Amino acid sequence: MFKNLFRRQLPGTVDSVGPADFPELDTAAELLTAPSAMMQLSLAEARAVARYMRPRFIREGTVFIREGDAEGTGFMVLVLDGEVTVENIVVSRVSPITVTVLGAGSMHGELGLIDGLPRSASCTASSDLHCVTLTREGMLQLLKDEPKLGAKLMMAIAMSVAGRLRDNTEKLKKYVQLTMAMQQEIDHLMPA
Amino acid sequence: MFKNLFRRQLPGTVDSVGPADFPELDTAAELLTAPSAMMQLSLAEARAVARYMRPRFIREGTVFIREGDAEGTGFMVLVLDGEVTVENIVVSRVSPITVTVLGAGSMHGELGLIDGLPRSASCTASSDLHCVTLTREGMLQLLKDEPKLGAKLMMAIAMSVAGRLRDNTEKLKKYVQLTMAMQQEIDHLMPA
Repeated sequence: MFKNLFRRQLPGTVDSVGPADFPELDTAAELLTAPSAMMQLSLAEARAVARYMRPRFIREGTVFIREGDAEGTGFMVLVLDGEVTVENIVVSRVSPITVTVLGAGSMHGELGLIDGLPRSASCTASSDLHCVTLTREGMLQLLKDEPKLGAKLMMAIAMSVAGRLRDNTEKLKKYVQLTMAMQQEIDHLMPA
Repeated sequence: MFKNLFRRQLPGTVDSVGPADFPELDTAAELLTAPSAMMQLSLAEARAVARYMRPRFIREGTVFIREGDAEGTGFMVLVLDGEVTVENIVVSRVSPITVTVLGAGSMHGELGLIDGLPRSASCTASSDLHCVTLTREGMLQLLKDEPKLGAKLMMAIAMSVAGRLRDNTEKLKKYVQLTMAMQQEIDHLMPA
């Protein structure tokens, strides 16, 4: 489904995994130079990395990653412009819970790209989205052609996942506190 | 503090970041060959990677990573044998909440190694621990000496973080359900 979606938009480029130039290259490169404790991509390095990605336009309202999907896990998205709503389905609730809304510079789908497991959340374009995608094949090609740059990109991806894990941990702590407070209220309200 | 701890145990080896042999090398290498969707370390590659790590013995009861610590973030631990209790401090609760207990093959401290931010949880040796540590300097040296292997290790680290993020997301979903159920109970108990 996603492959078809992308194929429609950029005919003939889907199977190419090597480096390529495109108009959004510089924007993608700039967004990849986010600082890290360990190492940082220079703008020149980020440009070289971004050439293994491919520009995509995603129309507002499109669900481009769907929670539970075990098939379309071979790509990640770097947002250049626009906003993405990340949502989780919770059993016993009608509408999904919004995890977060993320804009330019955010990555989506790195987990699946890395481990190939089913998608852990759904991502919807909450505005028209300009972005670049990196396929697993593109990543492997980069690691083969330019291992040092591949390692730095891997690092940037790990940073993104680490940031989300930190956010998530903070949320979990708040939920633990909330359930404790609610339990107290229930104990208080319960007839003796 | 941790530096001193380690220095006491292995005098003279703290500042060396290059490859070195040690008796636990093969065990460490085997634990590093966990499968990934993208690429996998062969045993020979994992041995080469493990030579940039250093063996450590941590006595039962030692808190070797402390939540909130902003100083000692320059290392991660790969457990070879023994168990680690991972805990979070929650405000308004006397004792910390146990996040998980992890054994051989588990990594601890990768987040801080990658992003240099304060430790997000505390790790305590719940038994005597045989492990190897990788310092930021060791990782950088590996990336310099053997970028392809460095990229693969980065990948293994990203896999570990991704796995924890997935676990965490499932936990969050359960808490959302729990708070919804508790809210219903409160609404039911509340005098009309």
